[in-house]
Amino acid sequence: MENFADRLIDRIKETTPICVGLDPHFGQIPDFLITESKTKGEAVLKFNKGIIEAIADLVPIVKPQIAFYEALGLDGLRAYSETVQYAHEKGLLVLGDCKRNDIGSTAEAYARAHFENEDFEVDALTVNPYLGSDGIKPFVERCEKNGKGLFILVKTSNESSHEFQDLNTGVNTLYQTVAKKVDEWGKGSVGEHGYSSVGAVVGATYPQEAKLLRELMPKSLFLVPGYGAQGGGAADIKPCFDSKGLGAIVNNSRGIIFAYEKDPKYLPQDFAQAAGDAVEAMKADLESVL
Amino acid sequence: MENFADRLIDRIKETTPICVGLDPHFGQIPDFLITESKTKGEAVLKFNKGIIEAIADLVPIVKPQIAFYEALGLDGLRAYSETVQYAHEKGLLVLGDCKRNDIGSTAEAYARAHFENEDFEVDALTVNPYLGSDGIKPFVERCEKNGKGLFILVKTSNESSHEFQDLNTGVNTLYQTVAKKVDEWGKGSVGEHGYSSVGAVVGATYPQEAKLLRELMPKSLFLVPGYGAQGGGAADIKPCFDSKGLGAIVNNSRGIIFAYEKDPKYLPQDFAQAAGDAVEAMKADLESVL
Repeated sequence: MENFADRLIDRIKETTPICVGLDPHFGQIPDFLITESKTKGEAVLKFNKGIIEAIADLVPIVKPQIAFYEALGLDGLRAYSETVQYAHEKGLLVLGDCKRNDIGSTAEAYARAHFENEDFEVDALTVNPYLGSDGIKPFVERCEKNGKGLFILVKTSNESSHEFQDLNTGVNTLYQTVAKKVDEWGKGSVGEHGYSSVGAVVGATYPQEAKLLRELMPKSLFLVPGYGAQGGGAADIKPCFDSKGLGAIVNNSRGIIFAYEKDPKYLPQDFAQAAGDAVEAMKADLESVL
Repeated sequence: MENFADRLIDRIKETTPICVGLDPHFGQIPDFLITESKTKGEAVLKFNKGIIEAIADLVPIVKPQIAFYEALGLDGLRAYSETVQYAHEKGLLVLGDCKRNDIGSTAEAYARAHFENEDFEVDALTVNPYLGSDGIKPFVERCEKNGKGLFILVKTSNESSHEFQDLNTGVNTLYQTVAKKVDEWGKGSVGEHGYSSVGAVVGATYPQEAKLLRELMPKSLFLVPGYGAQGGGAADIKPCFDSKGLGAIVNNSRGIIFAYEKDPKYLPQDFAQAAGDAVEAMKADLESVL
C-alpha cells in the first residue's frame, strides 16, 4: 500500500490538518441514542456514525481512543471495530490511539492485531517507546513495507509529562533522546512529500518544546493532542508545522464530538451537526496562524 | 476486597512464587485443538483451560498477555475474557499483561476496563509509566480502595531496554527514578505482610540492577520476566527476593505452556501434563537458590 505519510498529506491538502478524536465518554453520549440501543456499544457506534458522516468530507483522519471502548468490554470493542470499518467506508484514514508497547515477540503480536487483523486494522497507531527499539521494530517494519503509520509518544500533553520525559539525560532531555530515535526509526519510510510514516506525539500544551522537537525530527509527522479541552491554542501549535503549513495533525476530541453540549442552540439530536460546525470553527482558528 | 499484595503472598506461601504466562502464540497451539475448534479463539481457550487445570493448584497466579489475544481480533479477546474467568473459577489470581498507559481521563477508562468491566476484570495489571503520575493515579486508587494490584514497568527484560531506561538522569538512571516513584505510589496500599500492591516489572536478565532496585523499592512486589526463554536463570532472580524468599513472582510463559514441544516424551495431547511438569521443575530450580 502507498506510503502512509503521503496518503495523509494528500488528504490534508484537500481538507485541513485536523484529527477528530473519537473518545466516547459514555456519560456524554446523548440519552436518545442510549434509549434506542440494545447495548452501550450499539449506542456508541450510532453516535460515532453520526459524527463520521458529519465530518468525513472535512478532515483527513479520525482517532478512536481504544480505552473508552475497552471500558465497555467486548461489546465496546465490537463498537471500536465497526467504527474503524465505518470510517474507512466513508473514506477517512484511521489512527488507532492504543499506545501499545511490549518486547519484541509481543510487540509483533500487537502489530499483527492493529495492522493486520480484519477486526482492528487501522492505518496508523500510537505506541509508547519506554522499552526501546526492539519493541518498536515490528511496527516500523510495517510502516516501511505495508504503508502503515506510527505516532510514537515523545512529549505528551498532560501535566505530569515532565516527571520522566523532561529528565535531563546529559546533553538532552529524555524526550529529546526519544525524538532522535524517532527520527532514526523513520528513515526507511520517507514518502514523496518528504515526511516519514514514523511520526511523533507532541503535546500542544508545550510550544517551546515543540519548536525544538520540530528541529530534532524534521521528517516526522506530529500528532498534536491538547488543543482545546487541555488548554492548547492555535498559536501554541504553530511550531509543529513547516512553512507550508504541513507536517502535523492537530487532534481535538471532546471539543468536536461533544460540541453539542457547549452551545444551547443545539439539541442532543443535533450532535453531528454541532461536530461539523466545531470542525469548521477549528479549521478557521488554525488557518489564522498557519 | 482484601489487599492484593496480601492475597498474592498468602497464595505464594501455599505454593511457589511462579507466575505462568498465558501467551498463546497461535503457531504453537497443538493441531488437534485447532482441528476440533470452530475458531482460533476457541482453540486458544481450550488450550488455556488445559493449562489452567494442570497448574491451578501449583501456582498462585497466571498472566495472560493480551497482545496474543488482540492479534486474533474480537474472537481472540473473547478467549481472553473467558480465560480470565476460567482462571478465577479455578482459584487463581489473574494478572493482565496489558501495559496500558495514557493521560488522566483516558487512564481512568483503562482502569475501568481492566479492573471493573466484567469481561476483562483482573486482579492486577501491568502498566507503562512514560506519561508520569497522572496516568498512573487511576490505577493506584484502585489498589488502595478496591484490592487491585499493579506492576509498573521499571527495568524490562529485553535487549534494548537500556536505550532509554538506563539513561543517566543525574544521580540516577531513568529506571531508578521510575523505581523511586513506584515506591512513592505504593505507600497507600501496603498490606499486612509489609508489601505494597503497587509492584514493579524487573527483568531477570539484569541481576545487578535487580539488587539495586530491591533497595530502592523495599515494599514493592516484583514481577520478574525473562526467566527461561529470555536467558535469566534462578541465580539471576535471587536479588529480587527478600531473606524469607518473598517479594517477587517469577514469570515463565513459553517455557511452561509449550513445554510439550521441548521433550519427545510428550505427545501434543500431553501439553497440559507437560506444563504441570515444567512448573514442578521450575519450582525445584527456584528452591535451589531461595
